[in-house]
Amino acid sequence: MNLDSISPNDVILTGDRTTGPLHLGHYVGSLRNRVLLQEHCTQFLLLADAQALTDNMGNYLKVRDNVLQVALDYLAVGIDPAKSTIFIQSLVPELSELASYYLNLVTVARLERNPTIKDEIKQRGFERDIPAGFLTYPAAQAADITAFKATIVPVGADQVPMIEQTNEIVRRFNASVGQELLVETRAVVPEHGARLPGIDGKAKMSKSLGNALALSASPDEIRQAVKMMYTDPNHLRVDDPGQVKGNVVFSYLDAFDDDAAAVAELKAHYRRGGLGDTAIKARLEDKLQALLEPIRRRREEYARDPAAVLALLKEGTGKAREVAAVTLAEVKGAMGLNYY
Amino acid sequence: MNLDSISPNDVILTGDRTTGPLHLGHYVGSLRNRVLLQEHCTQFLLLADAQALTDNMGNYLKVRDNVLQVALDYLAVGIDPAKSTIFIQSLVPELSELASYYLNLVTVARLERNPTIKDEIKQRGFERDIPAGFLTYPAAQAADITAFKATIVPVGADQVPMIEQTNEIVRRFNASVGQELLVETRAVVPEHGARLPGIDGKAKMSKSLGNALALSASPDEIRQAVKMMYTDPNHLRVDDPGQVKGNVVFSYLDAFDDDAAAVAELKAHYRRGGLGDTAIKARLEDKLQALLEPIRRRREEYARDPAAVLALLKEGTGKAREVAAVTLAEVKGAMGLNYY
Repeated sequence: MNLDSISPNDVILTGDRTTGPLHLGHYVGSLRNRVLLQEHCTQFLLLADAQALTDNMGNYLKVRDNVLQVALDYLAVGIDPAKSTIFIQSLVPELSELASYYLNLVTVARLERNPTIKDEIKQRGFERDIPAGFLTYPAAQAADITAFKATIVPVGADQVPMIEQTNEIVRRFNASVGQELLVETRAVVPEHGARLPGIDGKAKMSKSLGNALALSASPDEIRQAVKMMYTDPNHLRVDDPGQVKGNVVFSYLDAFDDDAAAVAELKAHYRRGGLGDTAIKARLEDKLQALLEPIRRRREEYARDPAAVLALLKEGTGKAREVAAVTLAEVKGAMGLNYY
Repeated sequence: MNLDSISPNDVILTGDRTTGPLHLGHYVGSLRNRVLLQEHCTQFLLLADAQALTDNMGNYLKVRDNVLQVALDYLAVGIDPAKSTIFIQSLVPELSELASYYLNLVTVARLERNPTIKDEIKQRGFERDIPAGFLTYPAAQAADITAFKATIVPVGADQVPMIEQTNEIVRRFNASVGQELLVETRAVVPEHGARLPGIDGKAKMSKSLGNALALSASPDEIRQAVKMMYTDPNHLRVDDPGQVKGNVVFSYLDAFDDDAAAVAELKAHYRRGGLGDTAIKARLEDKLQALLEPIRRRREEYARDPAAVLALLKEGTGKAREVAAVTLAEVKGAMGLNYY
């Protein structure tokens, strides 16, 4: 993410569905940016339990339990609750209220045309049995974003249509009440290379694909993951030339080894032959152990006192409610729904 | 409505969309029942401003202003805020929250198959441009009903599918949390004759059809309405035999003249000829003036002090919130969304 495009007046809204602990893919794609961004502007981090329920109603305890797990991941990587407001979505009822009014500003046909929703419906195999809450979650997302008057939402390229839909709702609302009350937001898509492949070489790291390395991984799990990591299947002897493209070890070295010159040299060596997988894996394992050791340590510390973590979330949720309540009062006031 | 089927333990949820003042059709179809029912069981009366907004987003001031108008109508006909809890929907945020979870328990296909919604979409000419809030309002209605654990919802026959949908959501929720937490409700359809025709003879009295007589009508408006009332267009001379079926004056005498024997005699006389429209209209006008005079007088009294009426609504809304908050806490607790 290019920090030059962020001003101290910017407000960021981002977060995670609480369906599982976070992994190295999250770290590269978003968490490490958030640690930087909290120094530069206002940041709200949403533990999206209500959104996770839209397609996990049969699995609500998983959703609930992972609120704490994701919060531990946030704290472990260095998100500072004094700088970032971390909050639990289901405990900010103002968001449901805002969403209920936004539902009147978007048609069913428009929701069905939303490319992100279309893709996700296909991925989940819903076909015609889409839960209504899933089809309508762009309105809920618009509520999450506008409640905090967020100016920036970091998203993957596949989520850009969701932000467009939020801005459509913003414009419709403002036009219908004749005031520039809600704020349009800007999708910021991370630069190329911010998506970490799975350890098996698949484009996306995902817990459900079984190719993820959790942020809480033990030294042994890290070792095992590196050992299993996909390299070049045709690179059978050390002396053979090897391929760097699609080689997960090099993708990870690009992401985690600060010595870019050394990595470039290793790549050249690997390409011409004479550099074995064992050597590059050993280097990567060192980097990953060094990266994850303090994260794991901090995570364990926080995990020893879940009540203290919940107290932090309670405080963040309280702050988030205050902000969301102001927006909700403005929105309802603009529609005349302020009776007494 | 057959009062024998109502027990003191019953809880009734009913109300009106706040899109205009109420008329004589509402009085016959529901208001006079509510005045009786408040003596027999618990009754919650919803001023459905949020629901009215689902298809009136461009007309929100009308929706807002009619909250007071409908409340005045309630008080004027004898609904007693000490016996019935009158509340403003948009000021009970617990309802939006409940609805947001219920949206996960109903599919888009199921909503699209709902016969009531299908009809209303056709009536409103929405075609594919249905506001999402309109398609999903059965989930919001399920929230209104279940929040108060209502056991009875008085509805027109066309609304029965909505109640079936509520009960489907109730069963799905209870099954998904493994508890009989939410309560199924019963649609009570008013007996035959509870629908008053418009003064023009159309089956339905409706402000937008221009064939309604408002509860707040002045003596002169009542006189004019009776004068214009549809009778038998072939009954040209007093001596001619006249038709009773479809004759609005007789429909109204059936509804408002307590002397059923006298009305039966008038009908016979009219049928065989010799009874003029002027005579039956004079009798009906007397009845309507007598019915509406105290209603109008009470309405004017309350209307002189809107702040006092709003104070009553504030009190009712506070009571409604307390009840809805208990249900919401149970629902969220059952899904594990009780973090601290």
